[in-house]
Amino acid sequence: MKIGLIGLGRMGGNIARRLMKAGHQVVVYDRSAEAVEKLAGEGAIPASSLDDVRGKLDTPAIWWVMLPAGGPTEDTIAAIGEGAKAGDVVIDGGNTFYKDDIRRAKGLADKGVHYVDVGTSGGVWGLERGYCMMIGGDDDTVTMLDPIFDALAPGLGTIERTPGRIAGQADPRAEKGYIHAGPAGAGHFVKMVHNGIEYGLMQAYAEGFDILKSKNSDKLPEDERFDLNMTDIAEVWRRGSVISSWLLDLTAIALAKDGELNGFSGSVADSGEGQWTIDAAMEEKVPANVLTASLFARYRSRIEHTYGDKILSAMRFGFGGHVEMPQ
Amino acid sequence: MKIGLIGLGRMGGNIARRLMKAGHQVVVYDRSAEAVEKLAGEGAIPASSLDDVRGKLDTPAIWWVMLPAGGPTEDTIAAIGEGAKAGDVVIDGGNTFYKDDIRRAKGLADKGVHYVDVGTSGGVWGLERGYCMMIGGDDDTVTMLDPIFDALAPGLGTIERTPGRIAGQADPRAEKGYIHAGPAGAGHFVKMVHNGIEYGLMQAYAEGFDILKSKNSDKLPEDERFDLNMTDIAEVWRRGSVISSWLLDLTAIALAKDGELNGFSGSVADSGEGQWTIDAAMEEKVPANVLTASLFARYRSRIEHTYGDKILSAMRFGFGGHVEMPQ
Amino acid sequence: MKIGLIGLGRMGGNIARRLMKAGHQVVVYDRSAEAVEKLAGEGAIPASSLDDVRGKLDTPAIWWVMLPAGGPTEDTIAAIGEGAKAGDVVIDGGNTFYKDDIRRAKGLADKGVHYVDVGTSGGVWGLERGYCMMIGGDDDTVTMLDPIFDALAPGLGTIERTPGRIAGQADPRAEKGYIHAGPAGAGHFVKMVHNGIEYGLMQAYAEGFDILKSKNSDKLPEDERFDLNMTDIAEVWRRGSVISSWLLDLTAIALAKDGELNGFSGSVADSGEGQWTIDAAMEEKVPANVLTASLFARYRSRIEHTYGDKILSAMRFGFGGHVEMPQ
Amino acid sequence: MKIGLIGLGRMGGNIARRLMKAGHQVVVYDRSAEAVEKLAGEGAIPASSLDDVRGKLDTPAIWWVMLPAGGPTEDTIAAIGEGAKAGDVVIDGGNTFYKDDIRRAKGLADKGVHYVDVGTSGGVWGLERGYCMMIGGDDDTVTMLDPIFDALAPGLGTIERTPGRIAGQADPRAEKGYIHAGPAGAGHFVKMVHNGIEYGLMQAYAEGFDILKSKNSDKLPEDERFDLNMTDIAEVWRRGSVISSWLLDLTAIALAKDGELNGFSGSVADSGEGQWTIDAAMEEKVPANVLTASLFARYRSRIEHTYGDKILSAMRFGFGGHVEMPQ
Repeated sequence: MKIGLIGLGRMGGNIARRLMKAGHQVVVYDRSAEAVEKLAGEGAIPASSLDDVRGKLDTPAIWWVMLPAGGPTEDTIAAIGEGAKAGDVVIDGGNTFYKDDIRRAKGLADKGVHYVDVGTSGGVWGLERGYCMMIGGDDDTVTMLDPIFDALAPGLGTIERTPGRIAGQADPRAEKGYIHAGPAGAGHFVKMVHNGIEYGLMQAYAEGFDILKSKNSDKLPEDERFDLNMTDIAEVWRRGSVISSWLLDLTAIALAKDGELNGFSGSVADSGEGQWTIDAAMEEKVPANVLTASLFARYRSRIEHTYGDKILSAMRFGFGGHVEMPQ
Repeated sequence: MKIGLIGLGRMGGNIARRLMKAGHQVVVYDRSAEAVEKLAGEGAIPASSLDDVRGKLDTPAIWWVMLPAGGPTEDTIAAIGEGAKAGDVVIDGGNTFYKDDIRRAKGLADKGVHYVDVGTSGGVWGLERGYCMMIGGDDDTVTMLDPIFDALAPGLGTIERTPGRIAGQADPRAEKGYIHAGPAGAGHFVKMVHNGIEYGLMQAYAEGFDILKSKNSDKLPEDERFDLNMTDIAEVWRRGSVISSWLLDLTAIALAKDGELNGFSGSVADSGEGQWTIDAAMEEKVPANVLTASLFARYRSRIEHTYGDKILSAMRFGFGGHVEMPQ
Repeated sequence: MKIGLIGLGRMGGNIARRLMKAGHQVVVYDRSAEAVEKLAGEGAIPASSLDDVRGKLDTPAIWWVMLPAGGPTEDTIAAIGEGAKAGDVVIDGGNTFYKDDIRRAKGLADKGVHYVDVGTSGGVWGLERGYCMMIGGDDDTVTMLDPIFDALAPGLGTIERTPGRIAGQADPRAEKGYIHAGPAGAGHFVKMVHNGIEYGLMQAYAEGFDILKSKNSDKLPEDERFDLNMTDIAEVWRRGSVISSWLLDLTAIALAKDGELNGFSGSVADSGEGQWTIDAAMEEKVPANVLTASLFARYRSRIEHTYGDKILSAMRFGFGGHVEMPQ
Repeated sequence: MKIGLIGLGRMGGNIARRLMKAGHQVVVYDRSAEAVEKLAGEGAIPASSLDDVRGKLDTPAIWWVMLPAGGPTEDTIAAIGEGAKAGDVVIDGGNTFYKDDIRRAKGLADKGVHYVDVGTSGGVWGLERGYCMMIGGDDDTVTMLDPIFDALAPGLGTIERTPGRIAGQADPRAEKGYIHAGPAGAGHFVKMVHNGIEYGLMQAYAEGFDILKSKNSDKLPEDERFDLNMTDIAEVWRRGSVISSWLLDLTAIALAKDGELNGFSGSVADSGEGQWTIDAAMEEKVPANVLTASLFARYRSRIEHTYGDKILSAMRFGFGGHVEMPQ
């Protein structure tokens, strides 16, 4: 198929490459002419503007927008929508809030344009491993796009099949590494929860390693300490333990380089998905203590001392005369 | 009554004063001769050693130990116990772990010595307001000590009576400000949970004020900010709101001095009771998310960056190439 | 002053009464003619419709809307706004989301109409104790309304003054029990956080009493149990302890009636403010573990078994052959 | 090597089998003669008592105890210790609290007997996949036992090597699936934290699936619902996503059978390790909100309504007249 790819950052560039490798034609555009040129050198059809992309696409035109969520994606999709014709397809592969998808899909549907949201997991490893995709949109459009998703997904590969999963009865897409989750918005909703879970998994490992590392430290009396080796612990857990995972593999890689992780500041960013997941939990009245605590741990990592901590100190001074003065 | 008071720190000294004001005789001893002398100047009977105290007490001897929990209390009670006679009473008014009370009471009971544990709340305000006391021990001993507790407790005072509390049916001690909670250990158990709750209440206010204060801050776009006055907010909540409390009164006092609380570092200490409360919750399989999060917030306030935070950064670098480098 | 009061439920009716007691004239309207008639019998000016209220008010007209947040309030304020003239004032005394206040205030300002949001705490006790109020709006309007707020607030009363609060330098409103928190929305914002804190305080007590109560239970081996008296513990903590508060007073009242609380189901509702407080925390990137856990505890109280719990059981069965079957 | 294996439950039996497959001789004993007989039929040397085992072992005798933690393990190791000679080795492969290991190791060291603790992960899959082992004990003894651990561990197998892990510099044991974590107790300490992390990972998935499942439910207005397929979502996340893991594989297996998980009650058990992990965190003053919330979620899953929930309802009734009555 022929597809217009807007946004050639780390994710967009690799998606173009994986599509071309599978024989698809990719018209590429990015604000950076350099990025466009680079992909053109690898076989992509270069374009110098959205209009230029449009002119180089077939009918119906298929667009894949791979830009930062929020303004850049919103504006680009609006611009594409204005020039779109009935039957065209606009795919948002970024990290858009699912309610924005629902709104956009409604707006484009009035013109007969199909909107598809694709939540994409796999990070910088996707080029090699393939991307895990969670897709929202109408049935016919998703079915039409199957060759695209098939090219990007990991495929069956070497991952063992799930016992009890009955080929022929279940949708075969899931085993290839993508699903049609539901109507517009459903793809990004599932991806959002995926990221919420990711935060929780990461924080569980983080706390565990913290407890291990502190067992070596002078927080404890000398005769209660061990001298545990973080690098070897991460490695051994990869092999036959209940908590083996890809995130643990990544941890083991980092710890193999430096068990102290001195290269990292300990200030941890968060993207919108963690927060939106908690919003969804609250809308549904679902308790989500772990996912929330994981998000809050990241907030806290970026604050030296909270005003709340000072309120505590002030109270302690008030009732007990405890003084917790500036150091 | 005549009572030997061991430990003349902030709490012990004021307890002596409040007892003397009620007409009790207090034999005082402290490692610091200066502290002993000072209390003697206010009417106490000075003593120069535990043996000296013993010699100056009546039969049965009544001891009140008011020392830091752990070693100091443990050793002193052991020393008192060694010289004690059947019928003597040893009161631990400090912050002892309730299982230590149970163990000690058993040991002393073999010699016919009575052990009483008194959890004491009120802090530096106790001299004036009286102490709220939660008491463990056998019935006869606690009843014998009623005059002592009566002198230390706030009494009915100006605090409104609880509607529905029926005088004559309920134990009148509670309205005076002390209770006989149960056998040895029960007093410190109730006090321990009291402190666990205290942590939770404090953290609830802390988080609320944090949310208010951050609403003024450049964490938000300028047109989403307010300019809220922390001092006035604490004050107004004291008056007719659902969340009025003594801890809020203390907060209002601190904020009346400085709404920024610049005098406080934001590193917040914790004593054993918070931790023991969580231990008790786990023994009983009771979920206690709020009390635990309150304790952990204090731990976190004393750490610049956790190793766990670095683990998070390392994973993020692993899957997304995000770099969270030392600043 | 003359004021139109729309909504004569538990809160609205008592606000009318307190205003009349202070000499203000109140034009009352409610969907229920019966409620209007009742207030009329107590001295209010009855009205049969919003238009009727308008006809009976002075110029500028002052409206106090006291209706359930959401639809009822939204629609009523829209209707009032349509007929309003420049200089009129519309007060929303309900539990409106503060961003709705900001939106409404902008809309009404185009017509020269002043919008004031009043977060009101005090519940069913307000008639007697007075209402603690947090107010958003423009300076001139709030100043004009001072006599109204003064009548509703508790006033200095018997609550001790905060040491260090300097009369003449600080806004005297706070000591009377109300504050002008900032522009439209600021009142409900502060009230929202107030309720978030309220959830946290309540859950701290709840967990503490749970730990106390479970210490009596057969969850523990017999020789580790106590026989703690919840009624007396709540009572004694009211007297001189660090955790005394109005919420504890209410707990003591309930426990004086029945220490087992058999009359309560244990399913606990939550209103919007708890959730909005977490939203605000997330917008500001403020960690709020305690307030969030308090909200989630209420969600959980209304669910028999979560799907998440079954996911846990399914995993446990998967790796360990543990069977947690339907009971 | 020749080894005495005490306890032929699910874990012990499979350990015997895996050892025999590697050519080791295993003397087996269990309270159940039937279990002994069964293993004897598969090539093990049957024994009828601990003394009988001892008689059939070489010098030094090597014992592997694989019994439930607590009493059974404690008593058996005490009995073995009484008859042991200098140079003998006692291995505890169960889920013992690491402080018990430290105590036992000291006791046995007085007789020259070596104590080794082995934390074992892998569950019912271990026979086939091999066991991941975390080992505490003295260097010489662990080195002597290498052939045993080598036989039980998964070995390099098909799991990719960690980039950056330099063969020849790092301990090669970790890549085979076992580590010598430190002195006695260190093995079970690392295993304990492993299980703490396991709880956190599981709860993260549980909350995520709960949020997905509730998005389908009538908790939401009809036009906000999706119709998400839990079975396919679990499957697709196994393939290229950031959150792929062995626990997710197990979840996918369960969901492939029944997306509703109707066969599970939702009451989830917890073993000691989760609680001990929190104890360790508190000893080290490490915040561990996620691991704790995971443990508490399991407690909560086994309670219909908490007393704490009723306390909340009682307060709400007190200040607002809200009635949350028994249903």
